[in-house]
Amino acid sequence: MSFDFSAFTRDDLPPKAGRWTGFPEFNFVGGNNDESAVPVDALRAAADAVLAREGATLGTYGLHSGPLGYLPLRAFLAAKLKRAAGMDADPEEILLTSGSLQAIDLINAAMLAPGDTVIVEESNYGGVFPRLARAGAKMVVVPVDADGMDVGALEAALERLKAEGVTPKYIYTIPTVHNPTGTIMPLERRERFVAAARAYGVPIFEDECYSDLVWSGARPPALQALAPELTIHVGSFSKSIAPALRVGYIVAPWDMLSRILSVKFDAGSGALEQMVLAEFCAAHFDDHVAALNRRLEAKLDTLTGALDEHFGASVEYARPPGGIFLWVKLPEGVDSTRLAEVALQGGVAVNPGREWSKGADAGDWIRICYASPPAEVIRAGIARLADICHAEFGTPEIGANRRRS
Amino acid sequence: MSFDFSAFTRDDLPPKAGRWTGFPEFNFVGGNNDESAVPVDALRAAADAVLAREGATLGTYGLHSGPLGYLPLRAFLAAKLKRAAGMDADPEEILLTSGSLQAIDLINAAMLAPGDTVIVEESNYGGVFPRLARAGAKMVVVPVDADGMDVGALEAALERLKAEGVTPKYIYTIPTVHNPTGTIMPLERRERFVAAARAYGVPIFEDECYSDLVWSGARPPALQALAPELTIHVGSFSKSIAPALRVGYIVAPWDMLSRILSVKFDAGSGALEQMVLAEFCAAHFDDHVAALNRRLEAKLDTLTGALDEHFGASVEYARPPGGIFLWVKLPEGVDSTRLAEVALQGGVAVNPGREWSKGADAGDWIRICYASPPAEVIRAGIARLADICHAEFGTPEIGANRRRS
Repeated sequence: MSFDFSAFTRDDLPPKAGRWTGFPEFNFVGGNNDESAVPVDALRAAADAVLAREGATLGTYGLHSGPLGYLPLRAFLAAKLKRAAGMDADPEEILLTSGSLQAIDLINAAMLAPGDTVIVEESNYGGVFPRLARAGAKMVVVPVDADGMDVGALEAALERLKAEGVTPKYIYTIPTVHNPTGTIMPLERRERFVAAARAYGVPIFEDECYSDLVWSGARPPALQALAPELTIHVGSFSKSIAPALRVGYIVAPWDMLSRILSVKFDAGSGALEQMVLAEFCAAHFDDHVAALNRRLEAKLDTLTGALDEHFGASVEYARPPGGIFLWVKLPEGVDSTRLAEVALQGGVAVNPGREWSKGADAGDWIRICYASPPAEVIRAGIARLADICHAEFGTPEIGANRRRS
Repeated sequence: MSFDFSAFTRDDLPPKAGRWTGFPEFNFVGGNNDESAVPVDALRAAADAVLAREGATLGTYGLHSGPLGYLPLRAFLAAKLKRAAGMDADPEEILLTSGSLQAIDLINAAMLAPGDTVIVEESNYGGVFPRLARAGAKMVVVPVDADGMDVGALEAALERLKAEGVTPKYIYTIPTVHNPTGTIMPLERRERFVAAARAYGVPIFEDECYSDLVWSGARPPALQALAPELTIHVGSFSKSIAPALRVGYIVAPWDMLSRILSVKFDAGSGALEQMVLAEFCAAHFDDHVAALNRRLEAKLDTLTGALDEHFGASVEYARPPGGIFLWVKLPEGVDSTRLAEVALQGGVAVNPGREWSKGADAGDWIRICYASPPAEVIRAGIARLADICHAEFGTPEIGANRRRS
């Protein structure tokens, strides 16, 4: 017997999910990390220690820490955000979430009504655009350059909106290891950025989910450090420890956080993951992240080496100072949406630029995530991508020091 | 420096969250469990084993199981739901969620648009009413009796709606250990229930989050077992293992599940909790739940004994066949909303009936959750509640075999 549910669901749903059939042979999409870098033994020790000591508290919603999440993890974050990003964050103004995606969704749920305006970077995390569309928000896009969001263009957008009588709900930015460009906004621009936000009285929505992955280990202070009173700051352990641990966080003034918390209807985020992370991070976070960064930087070198070998000068990219992805401009005449389609058929998954950018040239770009595949898979995958690109578009003509036939 | 966020949030937010100040001295609310029953040592062993074997897969979103969640836990559920509830559930038609609350939210997100009609039980899980109100749904309430939802009243409601040209989006029910009444719907009524749903072509939304907690260890087949083609079935590990582990699930035909999955935007639910649960449950679930039920039934006896001692015949209740709560009719003239207020001031938290029922007599009832407090705390808390009730309402007059002065 079967039943047709189509009349019982909303008219505006996304397309039905497809059956999952495993990962492509060469998987250069998604925020997956290097599986060999997951600190398994230390996580085992952390799990054992924290469960032995406090496992019984799993019998209570929120452990004994309340709805903001496990207090020792919030305390770790407060110290780490101070040390790494210059932030003064009270553990009572940190909300642990089910990944930074829930953080984004909660902030939007608390702030956005249909018709509201938000300011976003033109090239951006691909998950932001459909979220804002679903919320019915109007996006004002501001270009990015090698230093992140163009702050002059931001000021112009704020002024134009003010003249129209529109106050945007927030300025969303990824200033530290921007997605997809990988840039880090310098301090001077950050200062001008927060001055603009203050002058126009607009909250900043700062997404720092990649900010631990900086090769040099140093980064400018967070926007939250410069303007804590109007910044809503989001971060994650997905990139620094492991993405399948769904633990992110929001730092915001209590006046705002108490509103965000009012729409968190889930009876708390997963407590075991918070407990294990707190136990692990207190002892190992800095050492682990430093070692992870060395490994990721080496993989970036592998990727750029493979691109140079197989695409030569036909592609362009700026080597990022951190992160897990490379934003690559394709050879002249190659449409990235089409390339992503045919590449996937050939076992190579990449993000087409139009999903990661509203820019006029978005179709010229792809995003390549390199943290997960082993080095030899990166090399073979880029070789395959070049072959597919050549077969479809006739370019690159020269690959691996030989002219293609 | 401070900033006023009030102009930047939605107009229709719930009240701002308050600062968490810990639990009341006598906490008879919430689905907390007996902390001494959390199987800490077995969870430690499970965590260690599964992390040693598969910990590296945390580096990949969804482990290697795809967006439905960790496959071994879905496989365990398929076997357990067959054994316990007569359900045929393909692991590919089970979606793991961040608690059953996310399950409810995803189902509503996929199905409900403002103005839609749903059928719900008049006395119900307190979290359902505000969720439906936020979704803009119209609730048609059907009374419950000692056997769960009144199926004659359900048929009448379906017929009346049909005459009005309205097809409800679903019939939401908690047939097995109903919340708050604790009843279990007998098989005969289940058969008539699914016949009505089929006759009127309306999906069933079956919430079984308490169904493992049955003293006898046996329960009738799930509605899903009787009408799998139109039932969306929800369950949880919160009550059987530990609520701070946020792991629930949805069982539904793929045609529906693929739509639900299309609105799950969180990049997966917490994987470590799924891994540890799968490892634990495969070896220990049945034994653990049997022992937990013995412990909970003894606590129920403690609670009813305390009520009998301190309230005597002035309160009424039906002893439930399972669960973690008791639905208690207060002495004549006592308003439960007011009682809950003054009791909380006196350190005793109970759920006032109006949050758990739309019935005309909702103000006569309270829900008392008894799984979490130790026996001596249950006894002392009920004594305190009786004192507070007497001080406010002059009843019960007799407590602990003495007349109150």
